[in-house]
Amino acid sequence: MDTPLAPGPEFDRIRSLVSTVADLAPAAEQGRGPGDDAALVDVPAGETLVVSTDLSIEGVHFERAWLRWETVGFRAVTGALSDLAAMAARPLGVLLSIALPPELDREVLDALGVGAGRALAGAGCSLLGGDLSRSPGPVVLDAVVLGSATRPVRRSGARPGDDVWVTGELGGAALAVRQWRQALEPDPRARRAFERPRARLAEARWLADQADVGALIDLSDGLAGDAAQLAAASGVRVEIDVIEIPLAPPLAEFSDRSAALKLAAGGGEDYELLLTAPAGALQPLRAAFESRFGARLTRVGSITAGGGVEWKGPEHGPVDIPLTGFDHFAAAE
Amino acid sequence: MDTPLAPGPEFDRIRSLVSTVADLAPAAEQGRGPGDDAALVDVPAGETLVVSTDLSIEGVHFERAWLRWETVGFRAVTGALSDLAAMAARPLGVLLSIALPPELDREVLDALGVGAGRALAGAGCSLLGGDLSRSPGPVVLDAVVLGSATRPVRRSGARPGDDVWVTGELGGAALAVRQWRQALEPDPRARRAFERPRARLAEARWLADQADVGALIDLSDGLAGDAAQLAAASGVRVEIDVIEIPLAPPLAEFSDRSAALKLAAGGGEDYELLLTAPAGALQPLRAAFESRFGARLTRVGSITAGGGVEWKGPEHGPVDIPLTGFDHFAAAE
Repeated sequence: MDTPLAPGPEFDRIRSLVSTVADLAPAAEQGRGPGDDAALVDVPAGETLVVSTDLSIEGVHFERAWLRWETVGFRAVTGALSDLAAMAARPLGVLLSIALPPELDREVLDALGVGAGRALAGAGCSLLGGDLSRSPGPVVLDAVVLGSATRPVRRSGARPGDDVWVTGELGGAALAVRQWRQALEPDPRARRAFERPRARLAEARWLADQADVGALIDLSDGLAGDAAQLAAASGVRVEIDVIEIPLAPPLAEFSDRSAALKLAAGGGEDYELLLTAPAGALQPLRAAFESRFGARLTRVGSITAGGGVEWKGPEHGPVDIPLTGFDHFAAAE
Repeated sequence: MDTPLAPGPEFDRIRSLVSTVADLAPAAEQGRGPGDDAALVDVPAGETLVVSTDLSIEGVHFERAWLRWETVGFRAVTGALSDLAAMAARPLGVLLSIALPPELDREVLDALGVGAGRALAGAGCSLLGGDLSRSPGPVVLDAVVLGSATRPVRRSGARPGDDVWVTGELGGAALAVRQWRQALEPDPRARRAFERPRARLAEARWLADQADVGALIDLSDGLAGDAAQLAAASGVRVEIDVIEIPLAPPLAEFSDRSAALKLAAGGGEDYELLLTAPAGALQPLRAAFESRFGARLTRVGSITAGGGVEWKGPEHGPVDIPLTGFDHFAAAE
């Protein structure tokens, strides 16, 4: 740690967490890491700071019985980093706040630190600070991500005539959650999608560098919910060809295609990207994207004048799939 | 809100919170406020970004029975802003995450927003973003503060021979907490100290501009705990003349001086500042500080070679006051 802390059990916890993360992720620049009242960050000249904060709360975002603590830490940081990907920003560092109930202490903190460290290592950035507290109830994490971009890509730049694309495959994480809620052991591929999502940081920057990406959002709340956000922010209608939605492998095997679509379009936390580009602009880049990143890039629809999201069936007529994004205030299903 | 959000109850909550805050605090610069995946912030050229995150958890940092929700929101944001004061940074904006149990919803969110808005207005900065969630237990707030400074002042710059100073008066907030814990109605002056702390943002920048402030820290954990942090960070010993500690008015009236000192030195959350400057350097500025800010500036000791904190009695011999900072992991007293 850059700035030494005084003795004491609260500060031993901070020292231990910082050292666990430092064994895995890049060190903060000299004089920039944890230990002072605030972290110091140099934003590259000419770039805009991009910042987001993302809560992960036991009983809302995850259940203790589902995951190892290392996975909880990994997902908390990855979900927050995904908000930087959604702006095509480069990560500069992360602050992590953790509150733990008294019965969980050092071992759990260490495991959360291992997961956070692995997520930071994947993004090539450092732990810059955070806050630790006791919790009288659930485990709470809040990950603050800092990034920068010369030209951040917003949700609001979609224009009628644009193509709509998604990265990766959808619905794997939602299937795992549904199976856990049904007290089933999840399909291993679905479990992996939930446990080891990746923030599409490099993918987003590559796409924004190569093409005129108009609007970009991550699918943290699911295709249905996030397409509605993109539509509202851009003042356009998003038309999705239901048949084109790239289903995660276990969903592609479902005999009930409507159940598969509901998971793929309604379930969040795959952390894939939804983006728009002028008609035809991304098609020539698709093969290069897929070979570079080992992930699919799929055209799923187009932008028209109007508002909201329209789901189109195989015959291109509208279909009614009552899909909404995940509401973090609603009770669990 | 800059970027329109889609319809839906979760987003109605965000719209309502943002609008409550916007009625009180400065608006974010066009295109920089809530509504996208992340907030965008322009850091002034040549300045360093200063960033901190600060948890406020029901049952740890406050009790529902003690405070109105507006005060909870005010204190959460003020406590975080105090970390910017502790670096002599100028505030750029705040992100606020809130998790609420299902039985508390719109009205509580509005009241938290009013308090947050008043704290932001006091600092002259805007709400830039945040996260909202259900909580299965306590109310949780996490305030992320962003600031900038040409030359941030750290904890680590104290040198032997320096004077040690504090702003304001200490122990008022701790007395209120003690009285609440004893099921007493707090002294009104103590209650006010707890309910309406101020982040000493302008004070810190003025002091750093006028004098060669070596080390600076806010007293969020109390004089004893934070002086120990300053000592550890700077590799020096902090000697405090116990008689010089500026007691909050109700404490000055205590017949038990040792109890008063224990509250003033051991209790945090007054959010005053502790700082060091070369011997004699701040004395000539004291009257100007006090008239400009309506707050005391008191020399409480000096820096020597060594480590830790030494408490000196009226005869300048060491006194033993078993004082430590507030440990947010320890159970309530």
